[in-house]
Amino acid sequence: MKNLKDLTYGIVGLGIMGGSIAKAIRQNILSQNGATGKIYVCNRSTACLSQAMAEGVADKSFTSTEYDKLLPECDLVYVCLYPHATLDFLKVNKEYFKSGAIVTDISGVKGIFEKELPSILRPDVDFIIGHPMAGGEKEGYANSTASMFINRNYILCQQNFNKEENLDLMRRFITEIGFTRITETTCDIHDYKIGFTSQLCHVIACALVDSAQDEQITAFGGGSFEDLTRIAMINAPLWTELFTSNKEKLVSHIENFEKQIEAFKKAVQNEDKEALMKLMEESREKRMKMGSVRTVAK
Amino acid sequence: MKNLKDLTYGIVGLGIMGGSIAKAIRQNILSQNGATGKIYVCNRSTACLSQAMAEGVADKSFTSTEYDKLLPECDLVYVCLYPHATLDFLKVNKEYFKSGAIVTDISGVKGIFEKELPSILRPDVDFIIGHPMAGGEKEGYANSTASMFINRNYILCQQNFNKEENLDLMRRFITEIGFTRITETTCDIHDYKIGFTSQLCHVIACALVDSAQDEQITAFGGGSFEDLTRIAMINAPLWTELFTSNKEKLVSHIENFEKQIEAFKKAVQNEDKEALMKLMEESREKRMKMGSVRTVAK
Repeated sequence: MKNLKDLTYGIVGLGIMGGSIAKAIRQNILSQNGATGKIYVCNRSTACLSQAMAEGVADKSFTSTEYDKLLPECDLVYVCLYPHATLDFLKVNKEYFKSGAIVTDISGVKGIFEKELPSILRPDVDFIIGHPMAGGEKEGYANSTASMFINRNYILCQQNFNKEENLDLMRRFITEIGFTRITETTCDIHDYKIGFTSQLCHVIACALVDSAQDEQITAFGGGSFEDLTRIAMINAPLWTELFTSNKEKLVSHIENFEKQIEAFKKAVQNEDKEALMKLMEESREKRMKMGSVRTVAK
Repeated sequence: MKNLKDLTYGIVGLGIMGGSIAKAIRQNILSQNGATGKIYVCNRSTACLSQAMAEGVADKSFTSTEYDKLLPECDLVYVCLYPHATLDFLKVNKEYFKSGAIVTDISGVKGIFEKELPSILRPDVDFIIGHPMAGGEKEGYANSTASMFINRNYILCQQNFNKEENLDLMRRFITEIGFTRITETTCDIHDYKIGFTSQLCHVIACALVDSAQDEQITAFGGGSFEDLTRIAMINAPLWTELFTSNKEKLVSHIENFEKQIEAFKKAVQNEDKEALMKLMEESREKRMKMGSVRTVAK
């Protein structure tokens, strides 16, 4: 059994996610007694590389023209790029992976991976499809933190070609860096559920901000508006890719939501108090049953 | 000039708001050196009255059939009831107010007050229309806390009949119990802005929960869904009243929001990346400009 503290980790893309993963490995895994593992980082722009080296987070840094030097060294490669960039990275650099390496990703859509991976990967390299359910509206390595994953959810979409020992290693690894709940499901279910809990919510937050006719509303805030629109400070290129990569499912969620909004509008227009009571009692009860979506204190 | 620490306060309705106001008065005002002021509380159900007495929050308690005993004693009466119940309370009990008393409310809609107050109130009693922008999805005195108002917003809708000295006293009082920003505006502007920042947000949160086809989504949460739906654990009777009392303004906000949701849906359906980028860049920029709606740490 491979020992997590003795692996060489390769982080491809050192933004808020890659940076947080590197920091959590450093703090939770490589700080263990007798650890011989290493963290190698790689990023297109180099400012964050110097910072990660200076902070002692990374042992070596590489530019994005040096994958041929980085990848042959790594036992576990975390590709922390946008979804299509992740697939492109795999296509272009597959020859450089160390034989027996585990490769994994952080993408918010999974269907495209299930579809394309079999034709991309080498049989001696195991790609594990996963989604760490954490992040922040502030991007970049500067906003990364070792504690980002504490008490959060992780989704694994196991494939037929995955080796059981590698899945076990991933589960141990995920737990070590802070996640408390691992859900194993299909790419299809992942995309459907994430289309609702994450993508639809981002559409709503942005639409709400876009519909504001007045930016001077801060004096009239009681908390609700801020809660609903924190995620509207959105990374537009990333979410454009996520939305269009999950088109059918997201559109069906938007349509269901539109029907409910319309029901509220009609009830208000008609001053139909009975209908409003019913709609809101349903949401209260349903929301209570859903419990806490995440267990972490904010 | 009346001294806040020497007033007798009457709290009508001892729920989460009335309770928090009473506790904040006790902690921030009546704890001052030489204070002679009192807190009298009144509620329909009596369990919370005993609790407030036992906790030393209230000096005397009254049932809702004893307004004739309570009101003649009070210099500042805080009516912490639902909007129409507040108006009904004023109509039925106006004769009991102490001459020179200040009466104020906490209602989330203001147009109905502006309209009805002149025909209700006595010339020797000053009603100040206000809205403390704070609260919580958990109701009742048990969830009240003295710290609820720290760093929050307060709206005052000054009327022609208000006495300047009473408005000054209210401003001092509001600041003493924790609020850091007082905005003075008209009832019409209040209802328009609150229709957006508060009411529309509650409609959205409820519609989102109602549109969920699966209550077992907790494993797929990354924070967004929980943020957007905290307020869906809603007090249905109160919000039914708030929505229908602000019908035209709320419906116009819902319609603007629907247009934006539709724009997102179309862009996703057509995989129109340029349109999505534009919509999201606009929301990001707009949301950044809005800054922090409230200044309090959650």
